Amino acid sequence: MLNLFIFEEKQGIMETTNITGPQLIIDKGKCIANIEYMLRKAKDNNLIFRPHFKTHQSIAIGRWFKKYGVDRITVSSIKMAYYFANDGWEDILVGIAYNPREYALYEKLSGKCRLQATVSCPGTCRILASQCRFPLEVMIKIDTGYNRTGIRWNDIESLKESIEHLSTNSMIKIRGLMTHDGSTYGLNSREKILEYYETSVHRINTSCQNSGINDLIISVGDTPSASVVENFNGIDELRPGNFIFYDLMQYINGSCRFDNIAVALLCPVIDIRPDSRTIVVHGGAVHFSKDNIVINNRHVYGMVVGLDNTGWYQPEDDIYISSLSQEHGIIDCSKNKLIKKVLPGDLLAVIPVHSCLTADCMGSYMLTSGENIDHMRQVSQDSEYSIL
Amino acid sequence: MLNLFIFEEKQGIMETTNITGPQLIIDKGKCIANIEYMLRKAKDNNLIFRPHFKTHQSIAIGRWFKKYGVDRITVSSIKMAYYFANDGWEDILVGIAYNPREYALYEKLSGKCRLQATVSCPGTCRILASQCRFPLEVMIKIDTGYNRTGIRWNDIESLKESIEHLSTNSMIKIRGLMTHDGSTYGLNSREKILEYYETSVHRINTSCQNSGINDLIISVGDTPSASVVENFNGIDELRPGNFIFYDLMQYINGSCRFDNIAVALLCPVIDIRPDSRTIVVHGGAVHFSKDNIVINNRHVYGMVVGLDNTGWYQPEDDIYISSLSQEHGIIDCSKNKLIKKVLPGDLLAVIPVHSCLTADCMGSYMLTSGENIDHMRQVSQDSEYSIL
Repeated sequence: MLNLFIFEEKQGIMETTNITGPQLIIDKGKCIANIEYMLRKAKDNNLIFRPHFKTHQSIAIGRWFKKYGVDRITVSSIKMAYYFANDGWEDILVGIAYNPREYALYEKLSGKCRLQATVSCPGTCRILASQCRFPLEVMIKIDTGYNRTGIRWNDIESLKESIEHLSTNSMIKIRGLMTHDGSTYGLNSREKILEYYETSVHRINTSCQNSGINDLIISVGDTPSASVVENFNGIDELRPGNFIFYDLMQYINGSCRFDNIAVALLCPVIDIRPDSRTIVVHGGAVHFSKDNIVINNRHVYGMVVGLDNTGWYQPEDDIYISSLSQEHGIIDCSKNKLIKKVLPGDLLAVIPVHSCLTADCMGSYMLTSGENIDHMRQVSQDSEYSIL
Repeated sequence: MLNLFIFEEKQGIMETTNITGPQLIIDKGKCIANIEYMLRKAKDNNLIFRPHFKTHQSIAIGRWFKKYGVDRITVSSIKMAYYFANDGWEDILVGIAYNPREYALYEKLSGKCRLQATVSCPGTCRILASQCRFPLEVMIKIDTGYNRTGIRWNDIESLKESIEHLSTNSMIKIRGLMTHDGSTYGLNSREKILEYYETSVHRINTSCQNSGINDLIISVGDTPSASVVENFNGIDELRPGNFIFYDLMQYINGSCRFDNIAVALLCPVIDIRPDSRTIVVHGGAVHFSKDNIVINNRHVYGMVVGLDNTGWYQPEDDIYISSLSQEHGIIDCSKNKLIKKVLPGDLLAVIPVHSCLTADCMGSYMLTSGENIDHMRQVSQDSEYSIL
């Protein structure tokens, strides 16, 4: 067992023993609090809670949800559906739009659990209807303004065409309409998120009214809305994912408090450059991903935070990673004194900009207790579509 | 065996059977040609050829080099050094700056091969000199203008201080000075790369003259310079990595021709949106990475290319991925007719912006012959630091 949080005299620097390179750390207590928070909202609003597991991709973390009675999940690929089905999850929505090449994979897994597909255009509905020889529930993806995937909310013709195609095959049941309106990720205040959410819900309900089908489930998914909204009138199902960890992006846009951020990447210092006032850490694009946000007109790739024996805390100074290459992260110390406090080999804790991508890059976790837990990256290619 | 390149009537679309999701494809013939090209340059200039294996991270691809007599390599982490040492590589430079936490890992591996460390600041040299109890060669990293890591080329004081620290330990031998001047990645013409390279070489030689040590090896590494320069006077060792695959960035900056690009990501079409003139593929940030370049004032995340029974080719129209989210890539069809040619489930081939990061994200390869080959991502956490 590692004792991770021995607080040194040098504030902001954690001394540990067995960590040699970049290591992703999870604060389980914060994750549990985030689960409880979101579950309480879902219960208060009488919603189906179907968290998205693409953020953590971990059986161990999935079980934290299961302890609270969560029994329905969303995943972002058919491969991820296999991963969780093999741990006993029995009601799984594949949130990415179905592509007809995956037919046999859906068919095989549908024998093991209640598997739901997402369809997002008339062409896919036509092909799926011609393929499907097993009972399958589908969600129709609606574009409520994000302009990424799905049938545009006011494109009644495409919606009706899709429904007509699906209706030609009695094995297919249309369960509902779903949106993932990621527009909220780009908003920088709770007020704007709330306002956008109302628009989005109005739009998906307009689609629903135009569908000509009764009893469709309305499902929404983005973490900013799920975090900020309290009154979920007009929807039936909530599918947030990122909230399990949150991250710097969610903190900056007001979706969470600093104390809700449950993930940090520990990076060893490998270079100290007083003349350019930078510290270089081993922690680059292959660890963080290159996602970034703009803070004070500068691109930021992560936030250096303090550490004490209870976990990480917000330091007095804002200290950011200002650029990333494949293995290196450059910390800008032009306006802080961190550079005077560190030595090569010290570990710095960095809150990632986008925890979903950082977790996927790292493909492994350590809890603050020192325990290692799984990530889907660790499953071998040979067994990724096997059923246990 | 997959027959990958059956040319359909629909130009630009490859029909394959067993590929269900995003799949990274390697054209071995192009890789071999890239190896031969770079090896010829190194031989003509009487250089030590020490290719960087961080791009491919593959034992199988490493063996293609070995067939040509290459026996010295560069890697970007001590973990990667273990990966290749376990396949019999016996002369390995770890190109990322040493951090003192890794001491035991270096010590253990140094018993198996000629392992070289990189040091990049006086503080690291001081600590390493106090730690080292086994014979170790080091390269001192020089910053010739990239402003990322290393001792600035004209900072004689820090160079001398570093050398003094290292000289206190007789187990340590300073092998030479190295630079990775990534400034060339941002240049957009062969002429600018050539000009910058000359400056960089002049600077590292100035460092060398100021070192007070004779017989230091001078080692340079970036793929743009290695690709464009023909006369390598003033250096001893060449360490390019990206050239094994090249990519869209290298093609745009003039380091390679289109025909040299040896890697493409096959992405299934999952949504077709005539009203916004976009195609959505399963192929997002977790597959490509979020690295991008600006072409015609727009951010570009990949280039859609044509396919025929010999491999990929440059299509008449420039068709780009214009945005990426976690699993989705959006292809802008506003100025081309691709949208009229595709169906859901068709595979599109996309040249990545930065092949090093895409290969790391994907963590697996298929050759155009259908054969799967290894990537370091597939090694289990338990065995990553074991010696076979």
